[in-house]
Amino acid sequence: MRPSGRKTDQMRAVSFERGFSKHAEGSCLVKFGDTHVLCTASLEERVPPWLRNAGRGWVTAEYGMLPRATGDRMRREASAGKQGGRTQEIQRLIGRSLRAVVDLEALGERQITVDCDVLQADGGTRTAAITGAWVALRDCLGWMEARQMVKADKVLKDHVAAISCGIFAGQSVIDLDYLEDSAAETDANFVMTGAGGIVEIQGTAEGEPFSQEQFLTLLSLAGTGIGELVEMQKKVLSDTSAA
Amino acid sequence: MRPSGRKTDQMRAVSFERGFSKHAEGSCLVKFGDTHVLCTASLEERVPPWLRNAGRGWVTAEYGMLPRATGDRMRREASAGKQGGRTQEIQRLIGRSLRAVVDLEALGERQITVDCDVLQADGGTRTAAITGAWVALRDCLGWMEARQMVKADKVLKDHVAAISCGIFAGQSVIDLDYLEDSAAETDANFVMTGAGGIVEIQGTAEGEPFSQEQFLTLLSLAGTGIGELVEMQKKVLSDTSAA
Amino acid sequence: MRPSGRKTDQMRAVSFERGFSKHAEGSCLVKFGDTHVLCTASLEERVPPWLRNAGRGWVTAEYGMLPRATGDRMRREASAGKQGGRTQEIQRLIGRSLRAVVDLEALGERQITVDCDVLQADGGTRTAAITGAWVALRDCLGWMEARQMVKADKVLKDHVAAISCGIFAGQSVIDLDYLEDSAAETDANFVMTGAGGIVEIQGTAEGEPFSQEQFLTLLSLAGTGIGELVEMQKKVLSDTSAA
Amino acid sequence: MRPSGRKTDQMRAVSFERGFSKHAEGSCLVKFGDTHVLCTASLEERVPPWLRNAGRGWVTAEYGMLPRATGDRMRREASAGKQGGRTQEIQRLIGRSLRAVVDLEALGERQITVDCDVLQADGGTRTAAITGAWVALRDCLGWMEARQMVKADKVLKDHVAAISCGIFAGQSVIDLDYLEDSAAETDANFVMTGAGGIVEIQGTAEGEPFSQEQFLTLLSLAGTGIGELVEMQKKVLSDTSAA
Amino acid sequence: MRPSGRKTDQMRAVSFERGFSKHAEGSCLVKFGDTHVLCTASLEERVPPWLRNAGRGWVTAEYGMLPRATGDRMRREASAGKQGGRTQEIQRLIGRSLRAVVDLEALGERQITVDCDVLQADGGTRTAAITGAWVALRDCLGWMEARQMVKADKVLKDHVAAISCGIFAGQSVIDLDYLEDSAAETDANFVMTGAGGIVEIQGTAEGEPFSQEQFLTLLSLAGTGIGELVEMQKKVLSDTSAA
Amino acid sequence: MRPSGRKTDQMRAVSFERGFSKHAEGSCLVKFGDTHVLCTASLEERVPPWLRNAGRGWVTAEYGMLPRATGDRMRREASAGKQGGRTQEIQRLIGRSLRAVVDLEALGERQITVDCDVLQADGGTRTAAITGAWVALRDCLGWMEARQMVKADKVLKDHVAAISCGIFAGQSVIDLDYLEDSAAETDANFVMTGAGGIVEIQGTAEGEPFSQEQFLTLLSLAGTGIGELVEMQKKVLSDTSAA
Repeated sequence: MRPSGRKTDQMRAVSFERGFSKHAEGSCLVKFGDTHVLCTASLEERVPPWLRNAGRGWVTAEYGMLPRATGDRMRREASAGKQGGRTQEIQRLIGRSLRAVVDLEALGERQITVDCDVLQADGGTRTAAITGAWVALRDCLGWMEARQMVKADKVLKDHVAAISCGIFAGQSVIDLDYLEDSAAETDANFVMTGAGGIVEIQGTAEGEPFSQEQFLTLLSLAGTGIGELVEMQKKVLSDTSAA
Repeated sequence: MRPSGRKTDQMRAVSFERGFSKHAEGSCLVKFGDTHVLCTASLEERVPPWLRNAGRGWVTAEYGMLPRATGDRMRREASAGKQGGRTQEIQRLIGRSLRAVVDLEALGERQITVDCDVLQADGGTRTAAITGAWVALRDCLGWMEARQMVKADKVLKDHVAAISCGIFAGQSVIDLDYLEDSAAETDANFVMTGAGGIVEIQGTAEGEPFSQEQFLTLLSLAGTGIGELVEMQKKVLSDTSAA
Repeated sequence: MRPSGRKTDQMRAVSFERGFSKHAEGSCLVKFGDTHVLCTASLEERVPPWLRNAGRGWVTAEYGMLPRATGDRMRREASAGKQGGRTQEIQRLIGRSLRAVVDLEALGERQITVDCDVLQADGGTRTAAITGAWVALRDCLGWMEARQMVKADKVLKDHVAAISCGIFAGQSVIDLDYLEDSAAETDANFVMTGAGGIVEIQGTAEGEPFSQEQFLTLLSLAGTGIGELVEMQKKVLSDTSAA
Repeated sequence: MRPSGRKTDQMRAVSFERGFSKHAEGSCLVKFGDTHVLCTASLEERVPPWLRNAGRGWVTAEYGMLPRATGDRMRREASAGKQGGRTQEIQRLIGRSLRAVVDLEALGERQITVDCDVLQADGGTRTAAITGAWVALRDCLGWMEARQMVKADKVLKDHVAAISCGIFAGQSVIDLDYLEDSAAETDANFVMTGAGGIVEIQGTAEGEPFSQEQFLTLLSLAGTGIGELVEMQKKVLSDTSAA
Repeated sequence: MRPSGRKTDQMRAVSFERGFSKHAEGSCLVKFGDTHVLCTASLEERVPPWLRNAGRGWVTAEYGMLPRATGDRMRREASAGKQGGRTQEIQRLIGRSLRAVVDLEALGERQITVDCDVLQADGGTRTAAITGAWVALRDCLGWMEARQMVKADKVLKDHVAAISCGIFAGQSVIDLDYLEDSAAETDANFVMTGAGGIVEIQGTAEGEPFSQEQFLTLLSLAGTGIGELVEMQKKVLSDTSAA
Repeated sequence: MRPSGRKTDQMRAVSFERGFSKHAEGSCLVKFGDTHVLCTASLEERVPPWLRNAGRGWVTAEYGMLPRATGDRMRREASAGKQGGRTQEIQRLIGRSLRAVVDLEALGERQITVDCDVLQADGGTRTAAITGAWVALRDCLGWMEARQMVKADKVLKDHVAAISCGIFAGQSVIDLDYLEDSAAETDANFVMTGAGGIVEIQGTAEGEPFSQEQFLTLLSLAGTGIGELVEMQKKVLSDTSAA
């Protein structure tokens, strides 16, 4: 029995609020239950130094949590003077996940930075961030298309979405919330495309090592869940008045 | 004529959304027009080292802006490795403003940290932050009162709210938005209590120096505006179901 | 009764020692009683990156205290690895105050940095710094005029000076020393020009909020005091052998 | 055809040099071909603050590369003033991998830090580091057992080793060297125990997304390779004169 | 011929101004020609963590230069976020030199920090700093003796002073100023006690290596010069009204 | 009697392992007994900003210790966020020592960075580092000569090597190991050329000040020892197959 009463293959309520931010070229407040992440995509007409004159652009991500997004207040990273290892790990993952479906040549010599800031955390912030970041990125490209800068669908080759699965109380479950996450025996994050290709897999045994069979069950749960997330992304984007 | 079409003594639409954050003991999303600041009050059963065994508590504030809260994306302070001078100046102001109406002995040996994070900026973030931070702090004290820890009204002696005034296109106006702020000749921030006492005054000539008469006009505008803000704080707090 | 025995409207003995530093284009050791600040103005033939090719220059300030300028030794900021919030607040104030009377176009594409280093502190370091920094800046411009680089009086449009006033033991007093400053109910800093225009006002209630009437009394005290400081600046500059 | 001429399931020559460091309680220079990592295990009779009086110990890891371990010299992280995101990601992975096979209660209130410093890099530094770190940790526990502090086999419940696999030029291969790594379409790291349980899986599509079938092939290759590595660990530990 | 017209064995005019700082337990503004260093000795009733309960105290030094102490303005170290290598090297040298003549047991469990801040630089700042720091330290111990805390002469066993010598334009000269220092072939700093014992020797060939004979000439020059400096220290301390 | 049983003028066993690193243009693992330092020389076709278009190159050094190179584990400097004072002092010394025998014009507009990383420490790491760094630098220049970039012997004008001497238990001894170093009364480091010229002298009284006679004894010991080190450098370089 899951603490939330959900079935093992049941994700939390997921929603996307496009155009949350007035200034950003694309933005989306994504919610996976009580996990709320604000994703903004910012376009800049410059590339990192190591990409100059290379004929292609760059997509990168930064991740942060508000100090009281969590149950106990955490120290503000700006005040601590550096981003922690967890933060850096997550923002590198988000960036890689987005780039897996972007044609950087088609983007041209520009950079899009997707900021994912957790307003409230209840487990699964990185997977919510990836799923919402894709929507913000898509709206940024739509903004650019409206200005004849790119063809959005040429730059963004496919959807990308992510979900966590894990073994909790002996059962394979999808979309762990904080209570489950902190007690899970195994915790895995999956990033996949709309076509079902795998972009990233990260699985960790928190307690006992897990078997190949267990891992395949998690992978199967994730495949179904990500399919549903991609459908939701499609649906929210079909509302042409929203961004 | 103001860019927004407002009258010289007309503030933007102001709203408070209490209980925005699930985890914080008190929280409030305050909006002054397109300026949106999330304020969370976090209670900790400890005091700073220099206050140990002094028989009183501490109230402090931290301030931050999401990188794309602004028209152009700003560098994330956590990534830059330090908080800028402007950030430090503002968070010190918020902390002093709140402490002006707090009885630290009545609080007991505890610390309340109010985080003010700007989700979207359109001028006046520091004054919105102070005004919203007071609501979050009040709800935190209410949470404590419900647990017999303190009497909220003994700890919090009065309201505190803040507004900016300035001279724009030769006219004294209240509650400058970004367009006005960046073109104003003089810019001043006022922090006052519910009883009308002055807690902080900060006035800066951006262009020509200003006269005593001009300053008194701004002070008068501010007094009226802050009176309205205090009424709004009272009204939103009277909704006992909200926090 | 003030601890120093001064009258309420009596400033401490003020002196300026021009040419204190052999290397700087302009320098001045300013003393407000036991508060001693060394101000040096350094000319550089370059501007900050964001001003390149903008056809105008920049004037900025930095502030520091020697570790044992104060009653108890403070940690050296260079060793702590960052400038504290107070330091940043003060150096931003000094820079703004100077720029209020500088014609940056007339300066040309150059930067003048005024370093204000507190050798000994006894209250009022920021106001002494502003008052002395103006003298160092004026001498730097005189140095430039002697080399046909600028007309000093075209670049520097007016005097600027500053003083603190506050409510101490129920009375409005000018130029608070450390004993008064640490016990004052209200503390305000005023920056004004030679023509009497206001450049900056910063007033803070340390204890009880203050009233508009109280504030006007402080403003009036400050106006008289700053007038005297400007006369002293004029007098010290009339000694053409000094710099 | 692999650049090194190896078969698809052929690892590089692997060796362990125990007791490389005179001072450390356990140490091992591990080589996977031209990738050389010095692992030292340091025992300290203290635990991190958050573990005090919790009745158990801690095992952690740090990772670093000498500046010229790589083809081009990289900036020294100590000089840059912080550890990069990649470094933090890797050292967190090594620590988790070791803790997966350690009984922290049996260790007692002590901390063992395993430093993994790359003397020379040619791909696969993190997997070599994990594999060698286990040997250094085992020898540290042997050192403790010789002093009647613990039973080494009670603290260390199983072997742990790691290998990378990837899709290079369309083929699934094991133990990628730098040339393969930088051209691979998919790159995955696997950490497993002596009993064959999975501790960590990290798979990344560098180019096209990969399929579940492809991933299973990599997992199978890894299982065989890690089995061999565990046998080598056993063999090198059977030389009782070495540490 | 030396740029200053001095003879090869002629030091610059040296002066000590005791009691320069109102707050410090001991202070001295030392001048070697145009090199001016403010030395303050601060007493604290605590020791560094690694000395706790060891029954003895500590004497340490910090060194800094005001940004415009030099011909060109240097970046402020507090703003750069760290002390440079040269700064650290010098402050370590000053601390070691002072400790060479201090009986740390006789000091008791206290720390004295001597801050040496260069107000104006013209070569030889480290040797001037050591020579002046000794005077500040002596006055601090006198302050303590007046309060029956220690016997100053039991804590401070001997004088210590320092001078630079070098080979300039083929000649061995003492007390190099900036012009000489930047052109010297060899530059050496000597720290000696009142009894003539050597505490520190640092010699560097800036151009051609130097011979043992050349080095002995420098050492001999230094011995005579330091003897004179010690006499000056004695003379300035004999003025019992000064500190 | 020395703890190691060595005679007073007997150095530890010294060895050089050239070509230790596959990637560096020159490299050498130097051992002075149990002190082991890996030196790598890295060539870059760029110079520091302040040398641009000056028609000459630069040679610099960086120094580091692995955390467990020492008896107790030290904190990793990359994790601490800065290089300590000792590290900076040593790397500046190594750089100066190498440059004393390099013709920077003959090098051309290039930079060679020699990294000296201590794998194991037992006293004398800086002198071992200098002695080994020279070998790595020579091999780097040989690599360049093989590519017709420079004439190695025109760039490198002489050998340079270093040794420590000190007064231990009342006797002057050469090449102190850790046990001697931590108990020595006086500790001095000498850097000399193949021709016997002195490049650097650093002598420190750890306890009692030392006399000129004592210092000359140390200098004489050092001269003999460095002569032997230079012979060893010549011998190891004569093996043309090694680098």
